[in-house]
Amino acid sequence: MLKVKKIVTLAVVNGPNLNQLKSRESEHYGRKSLHEIESDLKTKFKPEANLIFFQSNHEGSLIDFVQDALDIDGIVINPGALTHTSIALRDCLIAKKLPVIEVHLSNILAREEFRRKSYISDIAVGVISGFKDQSYHFGVRAMIDYLQK
Amino acid sequence: MLKVKKIVTLAVVNGPNLNQLKSRESEHYGRKSLHEIESDLKTKFKPEANLIFFQSNHEGSLIDFVQDALDIDGIVINPGALTHTSIALRDCLIAKKLPVIEVHLSNILAREEFRRKSYISDIAVGVISGFKDQSYHFGVRAMIDYLQK
Amino acid sequence: MLKVKKIVTLAVVNGPNLNQLKSRESEHYGRKSLHEIESDLKTKFKPEANLIFFQSNHEGSLIDFVQDALDIDGIVINPGALTHTSIALRDCLIAKKLPVIEVHLSNILAREEFRRKSYISDIAVGVISGFKDQSYHFGVRAMIDYLQK
Amino acid sequence: MLKVKKIVTLAVVNGPNLNQLKSRESEHYGRKSLHEIESDLKTKFKPEANLIFFQSNHEGSLIDFVQDALDIDGIVINPGALTHTSIALRDCLIAKKLPVIEVHLSNILAREEFRRKSYISDIAVGVISGFKDQSYHFGVRAMIDYLQK
Amino acid sequence: MLKVKKIVTLAVVNGPNLNQLKSRESEHYGRKSLHEIESDLKTKFKPEANLIFFQSNHEGSLIDFVQDALDIDGIVINPGALTHTSIALRDCLIAKKLPVIEVHLSNILAREEFRRKSYISDIAVGVISGFKDQSYHFGVRAMIDYLQK
Amino acid sequence: MLKVKKIVTLAVVNGPNLNQLKSRESEHYGRKSLHEIESDLKTKFKPEANLIFFQSNHEGSLIDFVQDALDIDGIVINPGALTHTSIALRDCLIAKKLPVIEVHLSNILAREEFRRKSYISDIAVGVISGFKDQSYHFGVRAMIDYLQK
Amino acid sequence: MLKVKKIVTLAVVNGPNLNQLKSRESEHYGRKSLHEIESDLKTKFKPEANLIFFQSNHEGSLIDFVQDALDIDGIVINPGALTHTSIALRDCLIAKKLPVIEVHLSNILAREEFRRKSYISDIAVGVISGFKDQSYHFGVRAMIDYLQK
Amino acid sequence: MLKVKKIVTLAVVNGPNLNQLKSRESEHYGRKSLHEIESDLKTKFKPEANLIFFQSNHEGSLIDFVQDALDIDGIVINPGALTHTSIALRDCLIAKKLPVIEVHLSNILAREEFRRKSYISDIAVGVISGFKDQSYHFGVRAMIDYLQK
Amino acid sequence: MLKVKKIVTLAVVNGPNLNQLKSRESEHYGRKSLHEIESDLKTKFKPEANLIFFQSNHEGSLIDFVQDALDIDGIVINPGALTHTSIALRDCLIAKKLPVIEVHLSNILAREEFRRKSYISDIAVGVISGFKDQSYHFGVRAMIDYLQK
Amino acid sequence: MLKVKKIVTLAVVNGPNLNQLKSRESEHYGRKSLHEIESDLKTKFKPEANLIFFQSNHEGSLIDFVQDALDIDGIVINPGALTHTSIALRDCLIAKKLPVIEVHLSNILAREEFRRKSYISDIAVGVISGFKDQSYHFGVRAMIDYLQK
Amino acid sequence: MLKVKKIVTLAVVNGPNLNQLKSRESEHYGRKSLHEIESDLKTKFKPEANLIFFQSNHEGSLIDFVQDALDIDGIVINPGALTHTSIALRDCLIAKKLPVIEVHLSNILAREEFRRKSYISDIAVGVISGFKDQSYHFGVRAMIDYLQK
Amino acid sequence: MLKVKKIVTLAVVNGPNLNQLKSRESEHYGRKSLHEIESDLKTKFKPEANLIFFQSNHEGSLIDFVQDALDIDGIVINPGALTHTSIALRDCLIAKKLPVIEVHLSNILAREEFRRKSYISDIAVGVISGFKDQSYHFGVRAMIDYLQK
Repeated sequence: MLKVKKIVTLAVVNGPNLNQLKSRESEHYGRKSLHEIESDLKTKFKPEANLIFFQSNHEGSLIDFVQDALDIDGIVINPGALTHTSIALRDCLIAKKLPVIEVHLSNILAREEFRRKSYISDIAVGVISGFKDQSYHFGVRAMIDYLQK
Repeated sequence: MLKVKKIVTLAVVNGPNLNQLKSRESEHYGRKSLHEIESDLKTKFKPEANLIFFQSNHEGSLIDFVQDALDIDGIVINPGALTHTSIALRDCLIAKKLPVIEVHLSNILAREEFRRKSYISDIAVGVISGFKDQSYHFGVRAMIDYLQK
Repeated sequence: MLKVKKIVTLAVVNGPNLNQLKSRESEHYGRKSLHEIESDLKTKFKPEANLIFFQSNHEGSLIDFVQDALDIDGIVINPGALTHTSIALRDCLIAKKLPVIEVHLSNILAREEFRRKSYISDIAVGVISGFKDQSYHFGVRAMIDYLQK
Repeated sequence: MLKVKKIVTLAVVNGPNLNQLKSRESEHYGRKSLHEIESDLKTKFKPEANLIFFQSNHEGSLIDFVQDALDIDGIVINPGALTHTSIALRDCLIAKKLPVIEVHLSNILAREEFRRKSYISDIAVGVISGFKDQSYHFGVRAMIDYLQK
Repeated sequence: MLKVKKIVTLAVVNGPNLNQLKSRESEHYGRKSLHEIESDLKTKFKPEANLIFFQSNHEGSLIDFVQDALDIDGIVINPGALTHTSIALRDCLIAKKLPVIEVHLSNILAREEFRRKSYISDIAVGVISGFKDQSYHFGVRAMIDYLQK
Repeated sequence: MLKVKKIVTLAVVNGPNLNQLKSRESEHYGRKSLHEIESDLKTKFKPEANLIFFQSNHEGSLIDFVQDALDIDGIVINPGALTHTSIALRDCLIAKKLPVIEVHLSNILAREEFRRKSYISDIAVGVISGFKDQSYHFGVRAMIDYLQK
Repeated sequence: MLKVKKIVTLAVVNGPNLNQLKSRESEHYGRKSLHEIESDLKTKFKPEANLIFFQSNHEGSLIDFVQDALDIDGIVINPGALTHTSIALRDCLIAKKLPVIEVHLSNILAREEFRRKSYISDIAVGVISGFKDQSYHFGVRAMIDYLQK
Repeated sequence: MLKVKKIVTLAVVNGPNLNQLKSRESEHYGRKSLHEIESDLKTKFKPEANLIFFQSNHEGSLIDFVQDALDIDGIVINPGALTHTSIALRDCLIAKKLPVIEVHLSNILAREEFRRKSYISDIAVGVISGFKDQSYHFGVRAMIDYLQK
Repeated sequence: MLKVKKIVTLAVVNGPNLNQLKSRESEHYGRKSLHEIESDLKTKFKPEANLIFFQSNHEGSLIDFVQDALDIDGIVINPGALTHTSIALRDCLIAKKLPVIEVHLSNILAREEFRRKSYISDIAVGVISGFKDQSYHFGVRAMIDYLQK
Repeated sequence: MLKVKKIVTLAVVNGPNLNQLKSRESEHYGRKSLHEIESDLKTKFKPEANLIFFQSNHEGSLIDFVQDALDIDGIVINPGALTHTSIALRDCLIAKKLPVIEVHLSNILAREEFRRKSYISDIAVGVISGFKDQSYHFGVRAMIDYLQK
Repeated sequence: MLKVKKIVTLAVVNGPNLNQLKSRESEHYGRKSLHEIESDLKTKFKPEANLIFFQSNHEGSLIDFVQDALDIDGIVINPGALTHTSIALRDCLIAKKLPVIEVHLSNILAREEFRRKSYISDIAVGVISGFKDQSYHFGVRAMIDYLQK
Repeated sequence: MLKVKKIVTLAVVNGPNLNQLKSRESEHYGRKSLHEIESDLKTKFKPEANLIFFQSNHEGSLIDFVQDALDIDGIVINPGALTHTSIALRDCLIAKKLPVIEVHLSNILAREEFRRKSYISDIAVGVISGFKDQSYHFGVRAMIDYLQK
């Protein structure tokens, strides 16, 4: 018997400075712009998942977005520098009661000491860190599978 | 001889995620929406105090509001997660030179370790924590009495 | 239909040095004696609550009192300096299995660093700190409402 | 032979609460408004440097501004309280790949312990702290000289 | 040749809240009252050891008891919460110059972080923790054997 | 023009207790045995990659294996508990001079505090944590792509 | 009515250096060899319990033994120095899902600071420390009683 | 012209275990009983000062004594182990608003680490530590001179 | 009306190793010798300020100089490595009761961790760090203006 | 029978800045110059003790003095700020193998946190802190008695 | 008179990864293989000392070797990464009751922070660090001389 | 072909208290005076190396010496207690741009905690600690070989 998988809707959320990927150090962040990454993801996961993209340099706007996002099934988030400082973002993700996967372009554990603290990791399903744009691909893949289990 | 008490004007300020009270865990935050809490406060303290309400998920907007609020006598604030991280909010409250009372719906001292640090408590008249919407009632009550002494 | 509220019995417990309120610094502790505060509370909450008062400078006597107090429904406690040092008091409050509300006359979070540690806060329903004798009024009020919910 | 010095364009950026200078404690912040400081700077450095001013209470707006500022040669920044908390601001300054000079009106090293941590200092050319509006004059002076070397 | 063993006299001392065993959480403290434990010990070790029992919620009374106890050969002590806070109890045990064995009903190392600090362990012959009333049996047994070696 | 990709050889290394996956808590580790995971990986990545598997409960054997492994191009490793304690394993991975990807079945950042320290993360290309057996799939995928870039 | 007690099978496991008891400092470790201790235990607990003994200087071998031990009901373990360093041993004991009792010959809490940290204590039923070979007797006794409850 | 010095009344207060001086280690505490020390002090300072002595093993009794002591001009106190743990004693000394001098028989700064913390030193006029009974002589001498200045 | 400014006398003090500027790393310390810097300063500030220069590798000599310097109005000091270690220098600057400005050639906040601690900053009017010899120019400028306010 | 006491020779050593007592804050350091204190001491202890005085702002000179001082029986030292930083002074006092008493004019335990660390206290017979010039009187008195015991 | 020196037997022990010297970074570890170093040592110290060599990547095997080594007079050990983590190795070296000298090829104090902690240094005669293979030569030389004193 | 080795010139520098070796505890420092050690070194290394000796108790003099030493090729230094406190000495050694080897008579890692911190080790070629005067022999030997490589 055939098991038809539900098409899921995911928010792919990016925090401060991720709109500027190309101008940042390529050894940390890869050579694709955020827009290119988003296009790639859309194409790759088309039939399986609707992807909604949001980026902001404003912590408050990220929280507004998460609060207001309707009809989504999960959140794949790269909180950027807010990973290490924003309890407010953590609180809004907890309040949303949806599964969260945290992704990072660079391997944050191999950088400055203060990037080791994450306010998101312990409320996330899992964390992917260091594979440049591939981190997003894994994150979306893992979320789809997580939701379809 | 009759001592006529002055009607005071208070700002009741709420930080990130407090606009979403109903959707958050009821064991921590109670079962009223922020709007309902504000209504209750307005009704209860009507002749004694004018209450001005403001909520934002944006640290900057909270600071803008505090800076621009004219003709207020005191501030009752639930800074939400900004309690633990915002020195900027602290600075603007100090600069305002008005009495501040800090309130919390949940007992933040009984939760995660990182919620023990407050940048507001030591510049506040006092702190009330853990009584759900009643925390606001106590906060407004205390501020009125503080101002009328 | 009328909902008749039960009259509750509360212990209002005070730790070391709170018997000397008047002789202590008024900017921290207000200008009322403990006896006056207790009278005020008794009068104010008369029909709703029976209040039993106890103060001691002895940690052991406070524990004895809590262990032996019969027929009480909740405890409003200002443990004074024992807040920061007494695990034994914490243990006896846990063992009592009654709701506890912690109150302080002064805002302990705005004073010496060592007053930030509380062995009571995380086992309490909530904490009220900084409103002089009003802290007790809020504490008793909150306990009555907590018990009647 | 004459060496003609290039006219440089500098952004002078101010973080939260610096728009309220006059209302804050004069022993820390001096007696000029931010607008007056900006006027003075403009006048003083006219032929040598174009100065672009920006102030916001919003971390995100500061980041937006830095990301979008075109044709500037260096940044003189007083991040206010964000000095101590904003990794996102740090990240955007790094990504901008322009020299940064950090200035403070008050001597932040002589104030609260939590003002000792700076996320900006170690990525700055240098730091000037404690000379009220003169801190900006030194900052702009140093940046012009730095760029013309 | 027969070696006749001396009958030893031991003090079995209990600190705050141990008089209330039955009312405390059974998963930590077992289901026997302190009185029952004392009876059991008396019966079990009758010919070998005289056991003197003392319990108090008062640190000072515990110290008085230890100072005044005459003709005892060793001390088996469950200091309860004073384990973690009382340097005075430690000092009086050192001054007594008798062997001490520390016992706990619950496994204190598996509970709150602040229960890991003991002011008694490093001056004790040994420590037994986690076996409910059996901890006392082991403690008395070990002390008798220690004294008869 | 066709770009023919090289077939890579990868070591997939597992540390202590990972041979016992099925008997461990499924909420952390999933429901597949290590053998099943290895089979799945072999099948899935067959034409692209040769996979060599090794598991040991012995730190020394893991080091021996890494030292002796010839003709491999990269290492995907789940060091288990050695993640947090083994500088020797770290040293041998550094000495090997091959790219390393660290994977974990459970989200180690959401567990005990002592699991936050990793001696491997900062020498790895990236880290994947929390997706049960899928963590390995992502790890192998990422390593193949990393090597073929 | 007679309650017939089941004969239990226990593993008594010893970590590094415990095979060398006699050559070590007698004030810490007593004067019996491990073999003698094992003999004594076997004799003493014969009808009640089958005892299986294992000692190794290799963390990995200890883990192998625990994983492979069949038909045992509980584990009495003296992990020696691994107490303070081995998360892998902790993990394998958790995975085994059997009750564990931790024993030490010397009172580790009265020795070097680094011996205060135990990765085993908080997952053990209880801890016995400081009674030389008697620690094992208590440990086995406690485990038998624990299992027969 | 003759300046007649006022006869002062001093409380000489001793905390836990100081009633047992002779039985404690003489290298730390000297060879006089507390009673002998008190006699010596009385004789030596007779015409200049009335000395009132108090010792207790009970923190609460020490606080009661300080609160109730009438007509004294200053307090010379050896709080014993309470030096390091009692915020309640500190609070009652502050509330008394009399000068305090802290004395110790042994040099507490040369002993265990936990004896370095004093809750009394920073509210005292001065501290004398390490001269056995002479510490009291210096303490009383210093207090008389302090009061007569 | 004309306001005639007083000519001020300033000590410009340099600590250990600053006599060797040219031989030290130019990226930190610039390319001028201390003598050249002093000449420049003298020339530049001639009519406005008398500058007295002193350098020593000896902490004691620096203290002697500060104590003995007569008729100076302010101190501009680069304490070199003593910034981080000398409480004695701090004490003598406090005792001198003159305004102090701290300057550094390199940005000490961007170097080793132990250079973040300064015993001078919190007793200084302000701090200038990172502008090579220009740091001194700013320091002298700021001191003159500070004194003439 | 008469016991003739030996006349002892003591060095009274003062560290940095103590030559400037009068110019320092009188609430901390009293109103006498070091010379006056030395005179007073000489007069007071004339027949009993020869006193040799030495003060230097140079750590090295203090060490030279201690090393070279012949025929002294004990050292009374106020190391000033070197108390908190000089291991070299500690080492030379240990090497001298003479009793040392540490004195301070001000109560260093009531001042800045960094004055709580002393490298001298734990190698001293005792410590006297807070009694201005009287601290020296007590120190010399205590040393004479210590030597004559 | 001639003093004939005894020929000593030394174990030269190497921990994890030291069998791979040539493949590791030469700036840290030099350019000789362990085998070459051992040959050199054998040749150089031939008549004076018998050298027994042992290397293992297994902590347990190193402990086994030390326990079983007969007729040796001293141990020269480079524990590699186990220096920083193995209390078990420390314990077996203490139990062996032979002098130990710790050597390192690289200067471990100039590398990562976690290499600063050594569990061996404080039980060793001395430590030699940073001279590549010469470290071993010094270590063996020092041990021979130490034993022949 | 013959490789003629260059004769090197080395400074052998000693910090505070090392001029007093004989009077210090022989178990730490051996039984030779510094002068004897220097003689031995001179004799032993005569044809290979010119040795220049310097000792001072003054940090400043040590820095002066290092700055002024001409025509030396390397520095072997025992900074004594300055090892742990002198950033100024560190800075002058860095500025000198010559190789440095740190030696200690005693094993500083086996002594007080505060002797574990070295400001010299991480800028040294290597460290030798614990071999009494032999430490110097190794240090000079290692420096000669280092320079001749």
